[in-house]
Amino acid sequence: MALLILGHPNIGESIANKAIIEEIQKANPNIEIRNLAILYPDFKIDIAKEQEALLRHDLIVFQYPLYWYNMPAILKQWFDVVFTHQFAYGSKGDKLKDKKLLASVTVGSLEREYRTFGKHNFRINDFFKNVEQTAYFAQMTFLDPLFFHGTSAVDGFTASEIERRASSYAKDLISFIERVELSSVVQ
Amino acid sequence: MALLILGHPNIGESIANKAIIEEIQKANPNIEIRNLAILYPDFKIDIAKEQEALLRHDLIVFQYPLYWYNMPAILKQWFDVVFTHQFAYGSKGDKLKDKKLLASVTVGSLEREYRTFGKHNFRINDFFKNVEQTAYFAQMTFLDPLFFHGTSAVDGFTASEIERRASSYAKDLISFIERVELSSVVQ
Repeated sequence: MALLILGHPNIGESIANKAIIEEIQKANPNIEIRNLAILYPDFKIDIAKEQEALLRHDLIVFQYPLYWYNMPAILKQWFDVVFTHQFAYGSKGDKLKDKKLLASVTVGSLEREYRTFGKHNFRINDFFKNVEQTAYFAQMTFLDPLFFHGTSAVDGFTASEIERRASSYAKDLISFIERVELSSVVQ
Repeated sequence: MALLILGHPNIGESIANKAIIEEIQKANPNIEIRNLAILYPDFKIDIAKEQEALLRHDLIVFQYPLYWYNMPAILKQWFDVVFTHQFAYGSKGDKLKDKKLLASVTVGSLEREYRTFGKHNFRINDFFKNVEQTAYFAQMTFLDPLFFHGTSAVDGFTASEIERRASSYAKDLISFIERVELSSVVQ
C-alpha cells in the first residue's frame, strides 16, 4: 500500500491534518504513516530508514499544511537529506523511478482567494512547480495535488466543522489512494 | 544598510555561497549578515532576535543555494517561525510593510537548462512564486531574484572558477544593494 509522509510540525495543535490522519488510520491501516516531527523533533532525519520506507512503496503521499505558500521546514529537510545523489538522481539514482508522488495539502484560505486579484494573487497550483519538478528529476510520476481548503477560523469555520469536512476529505483521499494502487496492479 | 539572511545549511562545505559572503564582508561591512545554520544548528530560531534584525533594515536579502527547486529547510524554518501573525500579517501585522525583499540564489545548473524541454522543464522564476507571494502577504516590495548559475562540477566548473565567478557576482550584488539603498534615501 501507500506510504504517507506527514509533514505537519505539530500534529497535536492541528485540526485538519489530525482529523485526516485519524480517519486514514481507522479506515486503512495498511497505509504506512511516518510523522516526521514526532520521529525527528531535532530535524536529524534517519536517511537510511526513510529511503528504506520509500523502497517499500509505489505511491508516496505527502500530507502537510501550506505554510507561506510552501511545505513546512521539517518536510523540506526530509527532501533535502533523503533525496540523495545516486538514490533519487544521478547516473545510478533511479531508486524512485516510476513511483507516484501525491501532495495532499491543507490550505487556510478558500480556493477562490487563490487567483489574480484575489487575496493570494496566484492559482494554488502555481505554488507547486518545485514539488512537480522534484518528482520529474527523481523520475517519479507527479499526480496533481489534492487540496483541503478552509482550515482557518478567520473564514468563520468552527473546529468541529473543520474536523467533519477533513474526515470527509480523508475518505476521498483514501478512495483515491486505493484506486491508484489498484490501477498499478492492473497495469 | 541591508540585512542579509544566509540560508546555506553548511557554509564550510560551500564554494559559491562562501565566496559571495566573503566578498561582501570584505567590500561592505555595513551589510548585516546572519548565518542561520551557525546561529541555529538545532533549528530553534530566536524569533524576537530575528524580528529585531528585520526592524533595523529596509532591504532584506536572502542568500541561499537552490535545493530541490526551493529554499533549504533552515531558511524555510526561519519564515515559518519569524513571519508571525501581527508581525508580518494580520490586522496589526504591518512591521515589514514597504521593506524590500531580494532573493539571491545560487543554482547548480546553467540558466539554459531551466526551460520547457530543458533538463529542469520550467523557467527558474516559476519556482519563486511562493517567495513572491510571501513578500506580498507581508506587504513587502518583491524585487526580482538574482541568480548565480553554474555551481556544479557536473557542468565542468572547477572550484577556483566557481570562486572567481562568485566573487564577481558578489560585486554586482553589492552594487545592486547599494543602488537600492540609495534610491530609498533619495525617495
